[in-house]
Amino acid sequence: MNLPHIVLASRSPRRRELLEMLGVRDLEILPARGEAPFPTELPPGEAAVEVARAKALDVLPLAPAGSLVLASDTVVALEGRVLGKPRDEEEAFAMLSALSGRRHTVYSALVLLSDKGERCGFEATDVFFRPLTEGEIRRYIATGEPMDKAGAYGAQGRASLFIERMEGDFFNVVGLPLCALGKMLGELGYEMI
Amino acid sequence: MNLPHIVLASRSPRRRELLEMLGVRDLEILPARGEAPFPTELPPGEAAVEVARAKALDVLPLAPAGSLVLASDTVVALEGRVLGKPRDEEEAFAMLSALSGRRHTVYSALVLLSDKGERCGFEATDVFFRPLTEGEIRRYIATGEPMDKAGAYGAQGRASLFIERMEGDFFNVVGLPLCALGKMLGELGYEMI
Repeated sequence: MNLPHIVLASRSPRRRELLEMLGVRDLEILPARGEAPFPTELPPGEAAVEVARAKALDVLPLAPAGSLVLASDTVVALEGRVLGKPRDEEEAFAMLSALSGRRHTVYSALVLLSDKGERCGFEATDVFFRPLTEGEIRRYIATGEPMDKAGAYGAQGRASLFIERMEGDFFNVVGLPLCALGKMLGELGYEMI
Repeated sequence: MNLPHIVLASRSPRRRELLEMLGVRDLEILPARGEAPFPTELPPGEAAVEVARAKALDVLPLAPAGSLVLASDTVVALEGRVLGKPRDEEEAFAMLSALSGRRHTVYSALVLLSDKGERCGFEATDVFFRPLTEGEIRRYIATGEPMDKAGAYGAQGRASLFIERMEGDFFNVVGLPLCALGKMLGELGYEMI
C-alpha cells in the first residue's frame, strides 16, 4: 500500500469504517461545509457526481499539500424518483413502503482530487426488496437505523433481512464503491493492496 | 423479536457476528464435532445442504429443550469445480488465480431444526472478480485473510477490492443468507425484526 494522506470529505461513519477496514491509516475526516443543492435536472448517477464534486472542491483548499481528497455521494432512485434521507419517522415509513416488493437502484459517486490527477465516476447497483409488512417497517424504524440514510435503510444492518437480491457492488449501496475506488486509485499510481 | 434460544452449529466467527448484528442475543455456539465427508456426487447447493444437515443433527442432542439449531455450510464453485478452504498459501494463490477475471458461484445452505418444525434450503450468489495481478494476489495472501475461507477470500474484507459485481444476496457470500434466514424463521413463527 502506497497511499498518500487521504482527506475524506464526508461525515458518514460508514465510509470512514470501510476505508479503515481496507487498512487505510493516514485518514483525515473533513466534511464539506453545507451541501450543494441537488441537481434534479440530471440523471441520478450524474447528479451524485456533481454533489460529490462540490464536496471535494469545497474541501480542497483545506487539504494538506500532497494529500488526496476523496468525496462521495449516494442517491437512491425508485422509478425515476430520488429518495433522500428521511426527515422523520413518517417519511421513513413512506419510503420503506414504496421500496417494499420492488427493485430500486442505488448510485454512489466517487470524486478523487490529487496532485497526480483527478478521477470521477459513479456505480449503480440494483436492489430487490422482498414484500414487507407494516409491522416489519414499524419495528425497523424503531431500531433507529433508517434515520440518517438515503432511502431510509442500511444494507449492512437489519435491512439485510429485506434485501432478497442485489445486482452490482454491495459496498456501493453501503455508500462507497470499493472495487471502483481501488481501480481509480490504481489509475493515479496508488495501490490499495 | 420473539426468537428462541439459538444454537449455532458453526465455528465461523462471521456467522456469529452476522447474527449479533441482527440483534440476536440468546445465542450459543456449539460447533459440530468433525466434518462429514463432502458429497461430491451432488450439485454444490445440495451438497452444502447435506453438510449443514449433518452439522445440525450432530449438535441436536446437545441443544437445550426448546432451542433452535441453526447450521450452515458455504461452498464456492468455479465452472463445476468446488473450492474449499486453502491448505496453504500456494493453494490460496492457485484458487485466487483461478477466480481472477471470472464469474463463480457461492452457495450457502441453511438448516433449522426446532420443536416447531424444520426448514432447509440454499441460496446461490454469482460473484464477478476483476482481473488480478500476481502482486495483488500475493499481497492479499500476506494479509492472512484468505486462509480460513472457502475459495480463499472474504467478501466483507479486502477482497471487496476484487469483486466488481455480485448477483444475489451479499451475505450469502459472507456465509449466511440473512434474507432467507429471516423468511425461514418467519415460517416457523419467529420474527427477526
